[in-house]
Amino acid sequence: MTRIEVAPESLFGPENLPYGVFAPPGRPFRVGVRLGDCVIDLAVALDDSTFAATSLNPFLAQGSARWHEVRDRLLALAAADLPAAAVHSLAEVELKLPIEVGDYVDFYASLDHATNLGRLFRPDSEPLLPNWRHLPVGYHGRAGTVVVSGTDIVRPRGQRRTDSGTPDFGPSRRLDIEAELGFVVGAGSTLGQPIDIEDFGAHVFGVALVNDWSARDIQAWEYQPLGPFLGKSFATSLAAWITPLAALAAARIPLPAQTPEPLPYLRAEAPWGLDIDLTVHWDGTPVSYPPFARMYWSPAQMLTHLTANGAATRTGDLYASGTISGPEPDQRGSFIELSWGGTEPIRVNGQKRTFLEDGDEIVLTASAPGPGTRRIGLGEVRGRIWAARERDD
Amino acid sequence: MTRIEVAPESLFGPENLPYGVFAPPGRPFRVGVRLGDCVIDLAVALDDSTFAATSLNPFLAQGSARWHEVRDRLLALAAADLPAAAVHSLAEVELKLPIEVGDYVDFYASLDHATNLGRLFRPDSEPLLPNWRHLPVGYHGRAGTVVVSGTDIVRPRGQRRTDSGTPDFGPSRRLDIEAELGFVVGAGSTLGQPIDIEDFGAHVFGVALVNDWSARDIQAWEYQPLGPFLGKSFATSLAAWITPLAALAAARIPLPAQTPEPLPYLRAEAPWGLDIDLTVHWDGTPVSYPPFARMYWSPAQMLTHLTANGAATRTGDLYASGTISGPEPDQRGSFIELSWGGTEPIRVNGQKRTFLEDGDEIVLTASAPGPGTRRIGLGEVRGRIWAARERDD
Repeated sequence: MTRIEVAPESLFGPENLPYGVFAPPGRPFRVGVRLGDCVIDLAVALDDSTFAATSLNPFLAQGSARWHEVRDRLLALAAADLPAAAVHSLAEVELKLPIEVGDYVDFYASLDHATNLGRLFRPDSEPLLPNWRHLPVGYHGRAGTVVVSGTDIVRPRGQRRTDSGTPDFGPSRRLDIEAELGFVVGAGSTLGQPIDIEDFGAHVFGVALVNDWSARDIQAWEYQPLGPFLGKSFATSLAAWITPLAALAAARIPLPAQTPEPLPYLRAEAPWGLDIDLTVHWDGTPVSYPPFARMYWSPAQMLTHLTANGAATRTGDLYASGTISGPEPDQRGSFIELSWGGTEPIRVNGQKRTFLEDGDEIVLTASAPGPGTRRIGLGEVRGRIWAARERDD
Repeated sequence: MTRIEVAPESLFGPENLPYGVFAPPGRPFRVGVRLGDCVIDLAVALDDSTFAATSLNPFLAQGSARWHEVRDRLLALAAADLPAAAVHSLAEVELKLPIEVGDYVDFYASLDHATNLGRLFRPDSEPLLPNWRHLPVGYHGRAGTVVVSGTDIVRPRGQRRTDSGTPDFGPSRRLDIEAELGFVVGAGSTLGQPIDIEDFGAHVFGVALVNDWSARDIQAWEYQPLGPFLGKSFATSLAAWITPLAALAAARIPLPAQTPEPLPYLRAEAPWGLDIDLTVHWDGTPVSYPPFARMYWSPAQMLTHLTANGAATRTGDLYASGTISGPEPDQRGSFIELSWGGTEPIRVNGQKRTFLEDGDEIVLTASAPGPGTRRIGLGEVRGRIWAARERDD
């Protein structure tokens, strides 16, 4: 038997216990939870083959009562001796995408981000479109290109707008990040049956950091009238660890004021604001501190809106918040905002920078209030930019 | 042994052989091909458990050489005696969604449709946006709400634009169809590796009719700046039968002229225009005849563009053409076009009609040139509108 020692200042202490899918050296992938710098093999620790799967989906599909039951058992286990065969060093395991993604939806729920992007993309119009304060604007992204943290990102090629009005084709010159939170649907819903806003916790299992890589030059040329497509679909990075909602009880806060009051279907008795602080690291240098607490629309409002027309949801559906930006210049969650469209470079390790260059590495981290004075961390999202592939065009 | 008799005028003769997934009464779903008014059970006829699956995906994942090998065997079988256990009457079986849909993408590839919609949605601007003739505009839709032909469609509720500028919430008043062709990716492609335009036939398995139901009032309010979302995501109907590309050899034609010439990555030696004629039936009355032959962008160009940024594709990915409209008034593939935004009602069974009413049934059919003077049919897409569900809001 063995006991996992966790440093008191760890963001992955016994009150956190995020879920992931890992492989010990030379062995198959399976479900584990992270504790400190270790991974607990749940198939072994709980003697339950649900966790011998290569994704969280079978467990998620069992529903919220089961999620809570398992968490209660894990909270007890984390303080006890564990069989040595159930404990692995995080440094020695391989991590994969923790969920099989059903549909991927990206929202646009930050007032500051939507206002900034409106100013940059449509300088001659009102930055916020008339619908923005009435509904959480969102769109579908590409589920098949959601990749796990640590996956290298190849710079996309595509049609780029030029000053002549005729596009050319080549590697994106304005490659950007979007610092977001993603929400994982555990228990799906039936076609034709909207999810009531009070049922958020019965459907959403947990939260994870997302970097929605964006090629702004490709996006700017293609996005009208049907929205972003190839400017986004080359890759979306998801953290390897999904933090269950149950671990975020102390992070739950009211929303900022919503004016005008939302339509009745979007009103909740107890809103799901979340006090989660992100940090964007560019080649090791913190360059921004996006505050999720400032998001205009809550993840519960997003889910209810997503299904208001009767759309079904499935286990493994992922929806993200959209870029998290606060009102301060160092709270912006994308480089197009931080550098104001590339016109105001920011300093990274002594250099002036605007968009991503080959070799750059971006890491998103986040933490939130935990029990008492402790804080809990979300799993990081890491990605490094590789040069575009050669190709005749 | 038994031999399937097919009427000479049948659109589902021995040169067609579309694939679907069916269940004989009281037995599990499995893969079959349609011949006349019968279904051939492939697991029995070919003694191959690949076809005992509940979707085409395992077969599709085996790749194009295998698709051709199986088709050659089926062409021989269709003219021969079959074991009685392999033959079922179409009238007696249940049909389900033939594929597990990976990602669903919808294009906007008809010049006439894009021009009509531009005039209706943005009456004060040029109808065609500057990017339209340079790339096949597309966006991701909701894969989890693709349903098989015959599934009832519940009228969606949602935020509707009102004249006051403040939205209200309720059942869509402008429920519409979009008559489209869908293309099924059989063999996927790797992240970072664009699909060359000449490799279309190695990746795309087949073609099927799609009705992309659209709530125009919800769409008009929500779609800026990130594209259609709830106005589309409540349901997309797919035919129960996928016609293999190999059956459409005689339907392959040049494209209409493309001006300006597309960028090099979108140029093909032998374009994939397809001479497929659709008919839209509204409560039994043919109201429109959309000609796929008039589509501006080919399905090969769509696939190559979709992956030009390195986006991966997967077995079961579905991409649709967008509404098929021709230049003539009776060739428009949506009711918003046929009724010009609801201002010019059309006659259906003696009544003036604009958008869909509860109880209406829409059937899309299509046929294409086959060998010699014969024609081959695509499986129909059928759907009936049910009243919106009651709900407090």
